[in-house]
Amino acid sequence: MPAIDAEAFLRDLYDLRKIGAFRTGVHRPTYSPQDMESRRWLMAKLTECGLDASIDGIGNVYGRHPGPGPHVLVGSHIESQNEAGWLDGALGVVAGVALARAGLPVDVCAFADEEGHFEGGFLGSRSIIGELSEEEIDRSRNRTDGSKLRDALQAAGLAGKPRMQLEPGRHKGFFEMHIEQGTQLETAGLQIGVVTGIVAIWQWRIVVTGQQDHAGGTTMAERKDAGLAAVRLLAAIDAEFPRICGERSTWTTGRITLDPGAPSIIPGRADVLFQFRDVSVPMLERMEAGLRALVREAARRERCSFELQAVSKAIPALCDPTMMAALSGAAEAIAPGKWQEMPSGAGHDAQNIARRMPAAMLFVPSIGGISHHWAEDTKDEDLMQGIRVLDEAARRFLAA
Amino acid sequence: MPAIDAEAFLRDLYDLRKIGAFRTGVHRPTYSPQDMESRRWLMAKLTECGLDASIDGIGNVYGRHPGPGPHVLVGSHIESQNEAGWLDGALGVVAGVALARAGLPVDVCAFADEEGHFEGGFLGSRSIIGELSEEEIDRSRNRTDGSKLRDALQAAGLAGKPRMQLEPGRHKGFFEMHIEQGTQLETAGLQIGVVTGIVAIWQWRIVVTGQQDHAGGTTMAERKDAGLAAVRLLAAIDAEFPRICGERSTWTTGRITLDPGAPSIIPGRADVLFQFRDVSVPMLERMEAGLRALVREAARRERCSFELQAVSKAIPALCDPTMMAALSGAAEAIAPGKWQEMPSGAGHDAQNIARRMPAAMLFVPSIGGISHHWAEDTKDEDLMQGIRVLDEAARRFLAA
Repeated sequence: MPAIDAEAFLRDLYDLRKIGAFRTGVHRPTYSPQDMESRRWLMAKLTECGLDASIDGIGNVYGRHPGPGPHVLVGSHIESQNEAGWLDGALGVVAGVALARAGLPVDVCAFADEEGHFEGGFLGSRSIIGELSEEEIDRSRNRTDGSKLRDALQAAGLAGKPRMQLEPGRHKGFFEMHIEQGTQLETAGLQIGVVTGIVAIWQWRIVVTGQQDHAGGTTMAERKDAGLAAVRLLAAIDAEFPRICGERSTWTTGRITLDPGAPSIIPGRADVLFQFRDVSVPMLERMEAGLRALVREAARRERCSFELQAVSKAIPALCDPTMMAALSGAAEAIAPGKWQEMPSGAGHDAQNIARRMPAAMLFVPSIGGISHHWAEDTKDEDLMQGIRVLDEAARRFLAA
Repeated sequence: MPAIDAEAFLRDLYDLRKIGAFRTGVHRPTYSPQDMESRRWLMAKLTECGLDASIDGIGNVYGRHPGPGPHVLVGSHIESQNEAGWLDGALGVVAGVALARAGLPVDVCAFADEEGHFEGGFLGSRSIIGELSEEEIDRSRNRTDGSKLRDALQAAGLAGKPRMQLEPGRHKGFFEMHIEQGTQLETAGLQIGVVTGIVAIWQWRIVVTGQQDHAGGTTMAERKDAGLAAVRLLAAIDAEFPRICGERSTWTTGRITLDPGAPSIIPGRADVLFQFRDVSVPMLERMEAGLRALVREAARRERCSFELQAVSKAIPALCDPTMMAALSGAAEAIAPGKWQEMPSGAGHDAQNIARRMPAAMLFVPSIGGISHHWAEDTKDEDLMQGIRVLDEAARRFLAA
């Protein structure tokens, strides 16, 4: 079996970057002419590397290894956010091409619309695991211009094509290589992140009800200030959460709306959007218990009432320990001391594929953490180290 | 000199209540047919009580005592907020009628548009002290329907009339009787509030600038969360202000805007509307110093920058000590133990008249603190005690 060709991998990435080029990034919204051109480019590359290439009814491009297994699946997405980076998604797809070129028994997939140009998002990875209905496709519209997904599929020449499904039992696991989209690796001077899991978001709405009053006539002692009660609760969360959270837990207050929001009126109502994230369900549950206790305590202490609504509670996607061990071992062999384990704070196709097979992810650094912007970039040497580690990890995992 | 006739005072109030009646309140927006009817009603009453009545070019109705001085001026406003209470304003005007009926040397004035139906507000009391320009009248529009003040004056038959000015040296002082518009007196079981001053509002805008980031990829340690920095500052103000403020100081956060205000984005900017109020300038200055120190401390502690903008810093109107002493003495004589000194948190015509002569205010309780709503009310017995105290105070002050 030939060794991995990191230079050819880089050449492929730079080739793909020309399709839909926008400044130093790319503009390849899902099913646009540029996106479809990139899918045709990919099919040619897969064929060149000896895979049987096809495109399905949702736009997934699939390269099937013709030889015997065991196989691994490798991939990501190939469309981009609008006027965004050249590596987000493309990296994981071209990594699959590189492993195929090196003769590994890999299937390669570019999942359509991970970026969610259409309502629902993750169309390709949800379709291939059987979790995207025809009814949802009928309903979904483009988030930018409101046009119908069905019309976009028709225009792209995909209407009427069957949608492929994963072949049960065919794959030992799924690898997705991706840019970090943060500054962890760069700040620590590392080249490789072995992803432990994709965090789940537990999103909450906190509604505080007090008494709307004129700010002139109402003494401080008489007030039932919903805004101040919300501020005190959020300050208490800020003080308490570090004691109950995991090392990489995050929590965020994204919005505070005071009603009526006028300078001389004591707010009668405060509406807060609050979320926390972690890869561990027991940790998420502990944070929920902590949040509930703080809200109860606030309700006891304040002259306002509190309502805590769970808006959404997702399930984190944990990475497969055997695959993680293969990645860690490969990273230590190729980039000793230059890697770490870390969660993924953002969502990826891997979270869907993980529902059907073991899955794992490998991160390479993002320069300055820039993401979803045309200035997104990663050093060539980090990209090359990444593909070397992925290649070695896939070999170790296949042999395990 | 006849004694005060509290029953006649009540009858006048109930008569006036019929003009523009709305449920148990009234609807008499400035210069509306109902408002103009109430002004004509008032001129008839003033004439009946022996005063020379007139209306001027801004709608001020003035009853001039024909006899020798010293005189006091008594009054308030006669228009109402939309679909609002029957006593707000009317009480102080009819109180003047009652004192005139009792033979006191009083001039009575109903100042136009204290309620600010037109841009600028306080048109009548600002006009009579010479602080309302023709240019402002040209510009001002109705806040509800955008119509021009000039057109409203024309329609009300006031266009072209001269605007009267206070006669320098004529008045020993100005008394305004008003409903409390709060629950202080009711809660304490009192009948009379002797107003110490009309608070000034010092309004601030606090802008916190951090770094907008994705809530997924950015660790807690890396964040520059402008929203959380604002929350911590507001919690610190809440903890610190009670130590530096006066007994009746108030402070209010009316609005918190986090930018961009999305659930999964760490706010890069927070915009806070914050105000405090007091009747004492040294106290206001102490609160400003406290606020500035807390903002400086936050800027030192947080990984965000803070900007503190003074939006407006008004001057409080202090009540005249001699007039307050007359009110307190009268209150203790007529309603012993049933009165207190208190600031006015809301604005009144007295704050403008106080710029030309000594001024004082007397409050009676508002049932449930309801104000600017048709359900606003005060017990008859409290209204009657109020007029008795005002009468006695005016006599004491005139004799002083």
